[in-house]
Amino acid sequence: MAELLVVGSVALDSVETPFGKVHDALGGSATYFSYAASFFTEVRVVGAVGNDFPTEHLELLRNRGVDVTALEILPGQKTFRWTGEYGFDLNEARTLDVQLNAFAEFKPKLGPVHRKAPFLFLANIDPVLQLEVLEQMDKPALAALDTMNFWIEGKRADLLRVLGRVDVLLINDTEVKMLAGEKNLLRASRKVLTMGPQALVIKHGEYGATIFFREGAFGIGKHPFRAPALPIEEVKDPTGAGDSFAGGFIGYLAATNDLSDANMRRAVIFGSVMGSFAVEKFSIERLMTLTRAEIDQRMRDMRRLVAFEEALPA
Amino acid sequence: MAELLVVGSVALDSVETPFGKVHDALGGSATYFSYAASFFTEVRVVGAVGNDFPTEHLELLRNRGVDVTALEILPGQKTFRWTGEYGFDLNEARTLDVQLNAFAEFKPKLGPVHRKAPFLFLANIDPVLQLEVLEQMDKPALAALDTMNFWIEGKRADLLRVLGRVDVLLINDTEVKMLAGEKNLLRASRKVLTMGPQALVIKHGEYGATIFFREGAFGIGKHPFRAPALPIEEVKDPTGAGDSFAGGFIGYLAATNDLSDANMRRAVIFGSVMGSFAVEKFSIERLMTLTRAEIDQRMRDMRRLVAFEEALPA
Repeated sequence: MAELLVVGSVALDSVETPFGKVHDALGGSATYFSYAASFFTEVRVVGAVGNDFPTEHLELLRNRGVDVTALEILPGQKTFRWTGEYGFDLNEARTLDVQLNAFAEFKPKLGPVHRKAPFLFLANIDPVLQLEVLEQMDKPALAALDTMNFWIEGKRADLLRVLGRVDVLLINDTEVKMLAGEKNLLRASRKVLTMGPQALVIKHGEYGATIFFREGAFGIGKHPFRAPALPIEEVKDPTGAGDSFAGGFIGYLAATNDLSDANMRRAVIFGSVMGSFAVEKFSIERLMTLTRAEIDQRMRDMRRLVAFEEALPA
Repeated sequence: MAELLVVGSVALDSVETPFGKVHDALGGSATYFSYAASFFTEVRVVGAVGNDFPTEHLELLRNRGVDVTALEILPGQKTFRWTGEYGFDLNEARTLDVQLNAFAEFKPKLGPVHRKAPFLFLANIDPVLQLEVLEQMDKPALAALDTMNFWIEGKRADLLRVLGRVDVLLINDTEVKMLAGEKNLLRASRKVLTMGPQALVIKHGEYGATIFFREGAFGIGKHPFRAPALPIEEVKDPTGAGDSFAGGFIGYLAATNDLSDANMRRAVIFGSVMGSFAVEKFSIERLMTLTRAEIDQRMRDMRRLVAFEEALPA
């Protein structure tokens, strides 16, 4: 089992969907990621909150074995807040308000233990901050990056700098096409793979995810792999699905410390499984009651969903 | 091998996409369906064209072994024409013009050979016509139905009547939600399965398709199966993708005459494979050069795209 470091937001979210709403609930990319990854490996969070951040939220993460010693509590600051809503199709959040608060001033400083983590996830924050963290690391075995349309449009040069130095980019369909300036998914993927990463995980929302590899990436060839998403009956809030996916994906890779083709495929499935749980309730509510047995059951459900045998020759 | 009957449109399409355009090209649901299905089994077409319909188009179908003796050529009539265009995302056609022509007056009358076909596909036409064909059949082993938003909204009562008498409905995401009046895909599927069919094939466009079964359908349990779509580099024209999918799916079922779970899964994969070829060129151009070896290769590509093994217990 290898350690996993994440830098990203720890936030208080106010979210409304057709199925309910929450106010100042525990959220943030690093929160969903580390909670999901904690089912697989040891996780350390780098980030910042204000001194209004409820102690019980820190306890939740600590109880999952997450190291929060590098989650700075900035005195006189407030915690990052995001307010958003979703319509009936639940496909895209409409952001109503963002208050950076503690994140506006945040300068990550990694201690010696944190620098040595062999697996790194740069969750969706300012690419300048992502680069500051990456530069302090001792050559991780695998560095993965998330981003969003806001940075692709607004901080493209910084984003390309960090993209050139990571192994895996996690991104959604719209974003990969925007980043590549190319409407065809396959051609967009190929183009983004020339920008640095060895692999690209494209998240298709309710349709799953596809991993594309650069030729010879990780010494494992170049065939893409597509994981389905499970059809879910109760989708209450999609917030955090992508970060929970990343937590399952990188958490499993770190736990097994194995970048073989077979294991990367399994990792994508674990990512899809963790995303499928996250959306069933608001905030990290569903993850809080989750068991490893439920995760393994859903992995078997995934297998049954896609398994087929070729016909025997007539 | 069992025979397969299709009723649907044989048309002249004028289509423009960002990658080219065609005028009065061979199109229509029964055309794509029968051409695709002809790679698997013997197909008979029921429909009508005008006497402006080019003889070489009939020859194309005859050369694939398609029986066009019940494709009526109505004197003094023109062939059904559809004019449409697609934007860069290629997701949805914008219909610019429809001229029913020969189809406005068409009354299907099935001869004794056609009535006995054990497999039936009611392609996307007026549900009143679909019902007229279904009522003339000698209890087919499998009757499948396609439809679209136009009939769901405009002829719901007729559609529900025919839906109550078929085994399989093929439909896309938007349509199944519209038909069920329910935004969640899984709940929408369950609701539509109470309307008659034993199985529901939901086409997700570039993300593949999922088959949902009613409890105990075909004596094969109730677990859904999701086929991916292959990421395709050159998508020129999505017209006919759904009908080519149906041709692969039902064509393979008819060829094997086997409704087991394993075979239904393979059939969905063959459907997805045929759809993936259809979109690579305009009209039936790509299907015209297609070989069975290419079909089988793409089926192996599909398998490699989704195959994964569960981890061994630690």
